[in-house]
Amino acid sequence: MSFPAPPAMMGYDRSTSMFSPDGRLFQVEYAMEAAKRGWTMVGVRTAEGVVIVAEKRKTSPLIDIGQLEKVYMVDEHIGAGFVGFGSDGRVLIDYARLLAVQYKFVYGEPIPVEYLTRQVCDLMQVYTQHGGVRPFGVTLMIAGVDEAGPKLYVAEPSGQYISYKAHGLGQGGSQAVEVLQKEYRDDMSLEEAILLGMKAVTTVMEGKPSTETLEVGVVEAKTRKFRKLSKEELQKFLEKLGA
Amino acid sequence: MSFPAPPAMMGYDRSTSMFSPDGRLFQVEYAMEAAKRGWTMVGVRTAEGVVIVAEKRKTSPLIDIGQLEKVYMVDEHIGAGFVGFGSDGRVLIDYARLLAVQYKFVYGEPIPVEYLTRQVCDLMQVYTQHGGVRPFGVTLMIAGVDEAGPKLYVAEPSGQYISYKAHGLGQGGSQAVEVLQKEYRDDMSLEEAILLGMKAVTTVMEGKPSTETLEVGVVEAKTRKFRKLSKEELQKFLEKLGA
Amino acid sequence: MSFPAPPAMMGYDRSTSMFSPDGRLFQVEYAMEAAKRGWTMVGVRTAEGVVIVAEKRKTSPLIDIGQLEKVYMVDEHIGAGFVGFGSDGRVLIDYARLLAVQYKFVYGEPIPVEYLTRQVCDLMQVYTQHGGVRPFGVTLMIAGVDEAGPKLYVAEPSGQYISYKAHGLGQGGSQAVEVLQKEYRDDMSLEEAILLGMKAVTTVMEGKPSTETLEVGVVEAKTRKFRKLSKEELQKFLEKLGA
Amino acid sequence: MSFPAPPAMMGYDRSTSMFSPDGRLFQVEYAMEAAKRGWTMVGVRTAEGVVIVAEKRKTSPLIDIGQLEKVYMVDEHIGAGFVGFGSDGRVLIDYARLLAVQYKFVYGEPIPVEYLTRQVCDLMQVYTQHGGVRPFGVTLMIAGVDEAGPKLYVAEPSGQYISYKAHGLGQGGSQAVEVLQKEYRDDMSLEEAILLGMKAVTTVMEGKPSTETLEVGVVEAKTRKFRKLSKEELQKFLEKLGA
Amino acid sequence: MSFPAPPAMMGYDRSTSMFSPDGRLFQVEYAMEAAKRGWTMVGVRTAEGVVIVAEKRKTSPLIDIGQLEKVYMVDEHIGAGFVGFGSDGRVLIDYARLLAVQYKFVYGEPIPVEYLTRQVCDLMQVYTQHGGVRPFGVTLMIAGVDEAGPKLYVAEPSGQYISYKAHGLGQGGSQAVEVLQKEYRDDMSLEEAILLGMKAVTTVMEGKPSTETLEVGVVEAKTRKFRKLSKEELQKFLEKLGA
Amino acid sequence: MSFPAPPAMMGYDRSTSMFSPDGRLFQVEYAMEAAKRGWTMVGVRTAEGVVIVAEKRKTSPLIDIGQLEKVYMVDEHIGAGFVGFGSDGRVLIDYARLLAVQYKFVYGEPIPVEYLTRQVCDLMQVYTQHGGVRPFGVTLMIAGVDEAGPKLYVAEPSGQYISYKAHGLGQGGSQAVEVLQKEYRDDMSLEEAILLGMKAVTTVMEGKPSTETLEVGVVEAKTRKFRKLSKEELQKFLEKLGA
Amino acid sequence: MSFPAPPAMMGYDRSTSMFSPDGRLFQVEYAMEAAKRGWTMVGVRTAEGVVIVAEKRKTSPLIDIGQLEKVYMVDEHIGAGFVGFGSDGRVLIDYARLLAVQYKFVYGEPIPVEYLTRQVCDLMQVYTQHGGVRPFGVTLMIAGVDEAGPKLYVAEPSGQYISYKAHGLGQGGSQAVEVLQKEYRDDMSLEEAILLGMKAVTTVMEGKPSTETLEVGVVEAKTRKFRKLSKEELQKFLEKLGA
Repeated sequence: MSFPAPPAMMGYDRSTSMFSPDGRLFQVEYAMEAAKRGWTMVGVRTAEGVVIVAEKRKTSPLIDIGQLEKVYMVDEHIGAGFVGFGSDGRVLIDYARLLAVQYKFVYGEPIPVEYLTRQVCDLMQVYTQHGGVRPFGVTLMIAGVDEAGPKLYVAEPSGQYISYKAHGLGQGGSQAVEVLQKEYRDDMSLEEAILLGMKAVTTVMEGKPSTETLEVGVVEAKTRKFRKLSKEELQKFLEKLGA
Repeated sequence: MSFPAPPAMMGYDRSTSMFSPDGRLFQVEYAMEAAKRGWTMVGVRTAEGVVIVAEKRKTSPLIDIGQLEKVYMVDEHIGAGFVGFGSDGRVLIDYARLLAVQYKFVYGEPIPVEYLTRQVCDLMQVYTQHGGVRPFGVTLMIAGVDEAGPKLYVAEPSGQYISYKAHGLGQGGSQAVEVLQKEYRDDMSLEEAILLGMKAVTTVMEGKPSTETLEVGVVEAKTRKFRKLSKEELQKFLEKLGA
Repeated sequence: MSFPAPPAMMGYDRSTSMFSPDGRLFQVEYAMEAAKRGWTMVGVRTAEGVVIVAEKRKTSPLIDIGQLEKVYMVDEHIGAGFVGFGSDGRVLIDYARLLAVQYKFVYGEPIPVEYLTRQVCDLMQVYTQHGGVRPFGVTLMIAGVDEAGPKLYVAEPSGQYISYKAHGLGQGGSQAVEVLQKEYRDDMSLEEAILLGMKAVTTVMEGKPSTETLEVGVVEAKTRKFRKLSKEELQKFLEKLGA
Repeated sequence: MSFPAPPAMMGYDRSTSMFSPDGRLFQVEYAMEAAKRGWTMVGVRTAEGVVIVAEKRKTSPLIDIGQLEKVYMVDEHIGAGFVGFGSDGRVLIDYARLLAVQYKFVYGEPIPVEYLTRQVCDLMQVYTQHGGVRPFGVTLMIAGVDEAGPKLYVAEPSGQYISYKAHGLGQGGSQAVEVLQKEYRDDMSLEEAILLGMKAVTTVMEGKPSTETLEVGVVEAKTRKFRKLSKEELQKFLEKLGA
Repeated sequence: MSFPAPPAMMGYDRSTSMFSPDGRLFQVEYAMEAAKRGWTMVGVRTAEGVVIVAEKRKTSPLIDIGQLEKVYMVDEHIGAGFVGFGSDGRVLIDYARLLAVQYKFVYGEPIPVEYLTRQVCDLMQVYTQHGGVRPFGVTLMIAGVDEAGPKLYVAEPSGQYISYKAHGLGQGGSQAVEVLQKEYRDDMSLEEAILLGMKAVTTVMEGKPSTETLEVGVVEAKTRKFRKLSKEELQKFLEKLGA
Repeated sequence: MSFPAPPAMMGYDRSTSMFSPDGRLFQVEYAMEAAKRGWTMVGVRTAEGVVIVAEKRKTSPLIDIGQLEKVYMVDEHIGAGFVGFGSDGRVLIDYARLLAVQYKFVYGEPIPVEYLTRQVCDLMQVYTQHGGVRPFGVTLMIAGVDEAGPKLYVAEPSGQYISYKAHGLGQGGSQAVEVLQKEYRDDMSLEEAILLGMKAVTTVMEGKPSTETLEVGVVEAKTRKFRKLSKEELQKFLEKLGA
Repeated sequence: MSFPAPPAMMGYDRSTSMFSPDGRLFQVEYAMEAAKRGWTMVGVRTAEGVVIVAEKRKTSPLIDIGQLEKVYMVDEHIGAGFVGFGSDGRVLIDYARLLAVQYKFVYGEPIPVEYLTRQVCDLMQVYTQHGGVRPFGVTLMIAGVDEAGPKLYVAEPSGQYISYKAHGLGQGGSQAVEVLQKEYRDDMSLEEAILLGMKAVTTVMEGKPSTETLEVGVVEAKTRKFRKLSKEELQKFLEKLGA
């Protein structure tokens, strides 16, 4: 070999606990690739609450899509979704649920959304710094309402999280973000937020949007309760979108 | 070597706890190959219950095929089968049985089917993220009936599970799925489900179908009891199939 | 190197806890090679009992062949033999004995043959899935009689076990199986089973069969007791075989 | 390969716990590269207190930049910031907070700034000397006031820390240091220090400085309290800077 | 490299816990090479007792050959010797002594010779199956008398042991075995056994046999006591041998 | 590759716990390289006490050089300095302090200087013999006075320590040693020792010597107390040196 | 590479816990190289006692050679020296001291010399058989007097020890052995033994022998006490030697 190989070919990308000469962590960047291959997911935050809209795909005609969950309740006041490696995501959702239950048990009140997010991210960070493991191959979206109002966090495989007003993830993520940037307003009502989220997802999704291929989770600021929209509600919103 | 080797040749596929540059986990994908080499297995879910139909092969004339089990009772209300690496599958079935017993002991009631599936999948996920081990080389099919009705889950080496109305696994899996897609109806009776499952398997299996080379496990919605069909029952169904 | 090397040359076969791209575990397959190099061993099961016949070789004139054991008592009702790596086999036999003693101590009754086999196989499976160890380099033959009647199991390095009516292992194993397939009948008497087993072994063994180079263990269905044939009994059977 | 490859290509840089022939630790040096890629941060210390000024960037229009923290309260009398790998930095900040709380609990008084810095650095050092982990990919800036007066420490991935009168980190760090060297005076008032820090950052930052893209944390010598400047205060300082 | 390298060159021989494609354990085979390089040692068993005869070499004129032990007392009724890696052998001899003491303490009677041998071999087996260690580089010869009469076991690095009437080890081992095969009789007296053992060793040893370069350990069947022959006894036997 | 590569290129230098064919430990030798890159430090021992003189450099105009410590108090009667990897040295100094405190607590009297040195060196040795860690990248200079009089030890990364009358370390170390060899006398007064140490350092240091760029620690034999010279004292000595 | 590389180049020498194809442990052999590089050391044993004579070198004019110890007291009746890697040797000497103290505490009498030697060697053996560590890079010389009279043991990195009447180690070791072989007599007085040991060392040492460059430890048979010769005694012996 008569000239240096490109950095990614010299072994720096084959161990989690190693920096490349330019200070990058390849395994963490590769884990983000896993996340980018997920189905599209969008989150929208307004003063009235937070919304997560997720695309679902019927990969097989006999799949029981009604049982296929893309948006999860973490605690009464928090919902979450993820894109990427399915079982990794489930493990993190379960970890988040455990954290929420423990917090309520110890402090007698609901876990603050950011505190929960940080705890989950601390676990994710550990998997980027120690040998013998790989990073989690998912990007999480955590939506909730607490004393400090509605929150929308996006947590990456590196363990870093960022607070967004609205954001898109997965295969159609960047396109969805364009829709959001054009139409997001700080003073939107919760209904407008739901409609915007659904529009961003349906614009980029592969098949025809329907009550079966969309899942919407909402946490209202007033009630501080997470719930998923029913098929009927979804249908109404779809009609309003003219989809 | 004057040009980059294909990713699968650069070592990313030689460690479980490592992502390839495009965010894939090769060892998990290879484990799925092990699963694909198993004998055909089909599951069918209807409102009246769930069925697992498994092909058995007499690899040697003196093998005691009567003792060869492909469908296992996990708990009174849950049965399961697997395709792939035999001893890996047995270990997971035993783990599932232990989970079911513990649950009943602690909560005094039968373990929910999805909860059991998730616990087994969590173990499988751990074996995809930590070094020094390999993923389980099997795909599981878990069939049961609980408060929420009949369930049919398929759990992959990655630790991901999906709910199906009907599905096929193993060497003849994809062909079997074609049969299922053509003939599955949501309103089938349990008997029709058994017949469909047997048809899907017998269509693709190598040798002549017989009461010796087929195993059928059923969980009826009414009784919530898992049982295997007797040779006599099998014979009757074979005759109905005209096989 | 201008073209991809064959899979077995790319390192997949140098770690236990790793799948090859086509879902194989090379180290487990190599361990089976170790087993194939052992001296011939045959098992025959009938309604009246189970028999293990083993070849012994006098590798040195001063070896104390009388002390050379190829068939072991595991418990009063169970015997076993193995082909392959000698000390690995001894460790597993000792483990099986320990399991049998513990079972009797805890439950007050003899350990079921399949339960014992499964426990031993679970240990073998662990050595195929975790790093830092190698699989056991032996194939075990376990013969016993319990409540469910006579049993003959063959357990492979993978940790998988299969129930046989009759089977052959080791260097002359496949030839012995041919003999067995031709002459095995379900309704054989125990004496006929012993004669068949001895015929299968003596047909393929290297030197002249004698009371010194053959070892035969028997578990009778009636008594549920394992015992080895005496030199006198062996002599009589040899005469009947015309050997 | 007919001549020695450059040291960085021979594997010395692929393990934390290894010296290169000339006594360097490449992984630690690479970790400093990660730190150099962060956004600009400046610290200024005077007799009247210490200031940390941090640049914030709106990487996406819908990012909730108000929630994006670059300067953190560690204890009542200590603030800190970092450049580099986000989640690594958060973990260290949390570790520092824990140390501060424990110290106050055990000794009943605020933790000395250098003692806290040294404890954090000891953790960082461990990650440079032991295998199976990587160094922390951040450079920390710790500002505080204790019995010994105002303090400004900069802690590197190696675990080494240095006391500065004023310093700059991140992408614009070296340019910012030039500004500081020209204008720093030992007798500056706290207000002058804030203005100098802001000038150093705004001179080198990419976008237009605003109350949204700047964060300023101050620990006053008199009160020994850390606080962040409000938007109004920031606005006034920006006006004074003529920015 | 244009054609496959021989198996021993592909890395299978560089880890204990790994099989080669043909089911061999190279590290164990290499350990046997270490054993073959030892000085000659011979064991002879008769109805009247067991003998171990060992060659000693004066590698340096000032070596204190009187202190150089090649035959060790393990317990009152058991002696042992080894060829190969000196400190490995010593560790195993000490382990054997410990086992003997513990057995006597727990059961109040002398440890059976085969039981002791098996326990030592189990330790040796562990060092062939687990990573991070190497096999013991010695072959042991264990001689003793218990309830079951005189015993002579040879234990190899693999952890396998074989019962012999007479055997030879080390550099002159195979030649010594030829002598033994020609002259060994089952009805030898103990004295004849000693003479035969000494003849087998002196025939193959390098220098002139003397009371200084030979060590003989004997366990008499009658007394069940291990003892070493005195210089005077050795001298008499040497004279009888005409050496 | 047609001829053997030089030893340092064959991997012996890439693991701490490995000897090269000629019995060297490359990682330890490389660690000494790290130490050689430090700033100059000199120690001088006389009957009246021990002195450590250290060079300090103002690597940046805004560095708070007054806080930059190169000579540390370990206990009341012991001081120490080091050259090499800063955070490694700090960890060892802290370890030495802990040892001193523990000793005083347990034995009620000051820790002997050599005992302390040996304990620190034992820790350093461990890091040269075990895998998964690297040696400490520093050479320590430990100066103290105990019952046995003034002591000056130099401890290397290998864990070896040597007692010196006077010695020099770091970039200017070998030149400083030349100065010491020419002018050292056993009957020097403490003041002469200080002057000699300062001369040796100032002769080789880069910038102009000043009270800011020199640090001097002294342990007087009479008082057995470590203290650092004040700026005023330093100034006087500098004047005497004519620097 | 067109032909097999020499064994030492194929990686067998890069791991402690691995045999080469011809049954050698390269790392242990390399550790012996480290020992061969030490300064010359000689031991002589007579009926009247044991002597260790060690060369010391003044590697630097300001080294405090009076503090440089080459012969150590282990217990009142045992002395020891070593050649090779300094800090490794110190660790073993300290371990030996600990063993001696513990023995006296538990049994109330002085530790037998061989027992102590064996314990130290057991530790050394462990470091040759387990991964993640390297062998100790020293050869020890242990001299003592106990119930069984004067003893002189030499312990190698492998953990093997040999009893000698007289022996030489280090750079001049083999030459010194020649001197010893010519002049050693079993009936030497202790004084003659001291003179012989000193002659063997001074004949081969680099510089001029003096009371400063020689260290002599003696254990007298009568008193069973270890002591070092004083400068005056050394001077007298040097004069007798005519050196």
